[in-house]
Amino acid sequence: MKNFESLSLKLKNNRLHVIDQTRLPADEVWLEISDVDRLVEAIQSLRVRGAPLIGVVAASFLELEREKGKSASAFNEMAARIRKSRPTAVNLMNAIDRVLRGESGEDILEEDVELCNKMGAIGAELIQDGDNILTHCNTGSLATAGSGTALAAIKSAFAQGKKIHVFVDETRPLLQGGRLTAWELERVGIPYTLICDNMAGSLMQKGRIDKIFVGSDRIALNGDFANKIGTYSVAVLALFHKIPFYPVAPLTTLDVKSQKGAEIEIEMRNPNEVRGAMGSFGTVTWAPKDSPAYNPSFDVTPVDLVTGLVMDCGYFSQQELLKGCLQSLISLK
Amino acid sequence: MKNFESLSLKLKNNRLHVIDQTRLPADEVWLEISDVDRLVEAIQSLRVRGAPLIGVVAASFLELEREKGKSASAFNEMAARIRKSRPTAVNLMNAIDRVLRGESGEDILEEDVELCNKMGAIGAELIQDGDNILTHCNTGSLATAGSGTALAAIKSAFAQGKKIHVFVDETRPLLQGGRLTAWELERVGIPYTLICDNMAGSLMQKGRIDKIFVGSDRIALNGDFANKIGTYSVAVLALFHKIPFYPVAPLTTLDVKSQKGAEIEIEMRNPNEVRGAMGSFGTVTWAPKDSPAYNPSFDVTPVDLVTGLVMDCGYFSQQELLKGCLQSLISLK
Repeated sequence: MKNFESLSLKLKNNRLHVIDQTRLPADEVWLEISDVDRLVEAIQSLRVRGAPLIGVVAASFLELEREKGKSASAFNEMAARIRKSRPTAVNLMNAIDRVLRGESGEDILEEDVELCNKMGAIGAELIQDGDNILTHCNTGSLATAGSGTALAAIKSAFAQGKKIHVFVDETRPLLQGGRLTAWELERVGIPYTLICDNMAGSLMQKGRIDKIFVGSDRIALNGDFANKIGTYSVAVLALFHKIPFYPVAPLTTLDVKSQKGAEIEIEMRNPNEVRGAMGSFGTVTWAPKDSPAYNPSFDVTPVDLVTGLVMDCGYFSQQELLKGCLQSLISLK
Repeated sequence: MKNFESLSLKLKNNRLHVIDQTRLPADEVWLEISDVDRLVEAIQSLRVRGAPLIGVVAASFLELEREKGKSASAFNEMAARIRKSRPTAVNLMNAIDRVLRGESGEDILEEDVELCNKMGAIGAELIQDGDNILTHCNTGSLATAGSGTALAAIKSAFAQGKKIHVFVDETRPLLQGGRLTAWELERVGIPYTLICDNMAGSLMQKGRIDKIFVGSDRIALNGDFANKIGTYSVAVLALFHKIPFYPVAPLTTLDVKSQKGAEIEIEMRNPNEVRGAMGSFGTVTWAPKDSPAYNPSFDVTPVDLVTGLVMDCGYFSQQELLKGCLQSLISLK
């Protein structure tokens, strides 16, 4: 494969490296993904995360293995293991299917960069000078091979000279907002303020949020979508306060097998993540030992709460989504 | 003063001790409140917290000082310092005013225990066998001198043999739910599940929450109330999902000087609390150093989102609150 370098991913002399996102922002540690065990562990522990990025990393890894001349059975077995590493982000399954059908992992990687640019351009049109934008989780260069999804729209608007400010939900339990989005925004100089997830509603009440942009891990054909836990609450709060709410995701996040959100499998993670916090500082626990805890990684936001969906191929209003535009998009493919 | 002992407070031989709530649940450390500096520090750092409890502790401290025969000027100066230690919980100001007017700190303490019992009994009537209850922050024996406010209702229903289960919001940034409420519920054997604040909406969406009970730090005469940050979001989510939402607070939480919630002063706290977490493990930081962060300690929930208010003197429906029943209550006093 060609050499490639982004904030989250490096390909050099046919060796694949990812930045360890569990160590950010304190430590910038790169990990070589030298075998399938490493890859599965890195995906499951969220060292590499973000629905588009895990698709790209899986495709790149498989492409490198194919170039090494792996036997078909060994190759298929690896693909099956990687596919099962996380259940919700459909980009992973979509990317693996494409590589198995013979598409090039390199094309998938290059495509992702291009999809980000397109989402950035389309999403930025929705952002006005002076906007205060709320975002949840991390949807930037640490979630894709390119500039991001929701964060690409924000970066794009900023690059156009629009004066914007971003409120960043810290995104418990794994703090992708507090650790990763804050770090990314700081690197590009976009003014932001970090908040706890439970503060977003109060800011909306005060009229301090103009627009909300989030990513997605899987979009059903009716426009319902799964995203990081907490997204649904933000969407309900947005509706109550009449604030536009936009998911941003590439076509690779569409799940052609799910008619509606209720069909999306939601990953349940280790209760320890809720009992405390993990980071470059190690693991701390504040809850009573063995306290019962609930830890769904995602929730599903129904299309009724969506103002419009930004994709690489265009912007779709709620009305268009309700009319089945995503179904038509697939039929055309 | 008489000897007294509760989960949060000890009076023995006229010496006042509080449990250090910043060290719970890992360490049970008692601090003697031997002078006003200690008291102010303990209140500001949330070693002692909970609107009713800080009122009771302030009243007890002042009572002991009075018994020591402090001069009027020294006494008034101390009272003024304590009053300014935290701005939102009006119980503190109300308790200090009462002691300055000559009421006994001992009476205020004993009254708080009795108010808790009454709120527990009235609140428990709203709870049915099989209910799944959501609560936010800590409103139990660590927030009062007695059994609590919202948590008193829950404990009371459980003691009546009702089979209930409690979902506990962890309550970022200071984790009063994850550290304190989980610990209290565990001690009394009430089944509970700890969640991150951003998971409550998703549980409501799934129909897994039947009722919501929260406390209050200050109630305006129109029924608007201030409570721990995140309460407002829970109230909006409750309305959207048609789930009954009940604040529980004693008459000592009523602010006769605030006509409505907008007049309530909201304490802003150190951004470091949002950049990481603090506990018996020390302080950890996960956000980029010096990242801008917003940290209001409370938000205001308008009476429109309240199903009814549980007080020691009775239950008031939203309709009664809107008709000005709290104003009448004061006129009657």
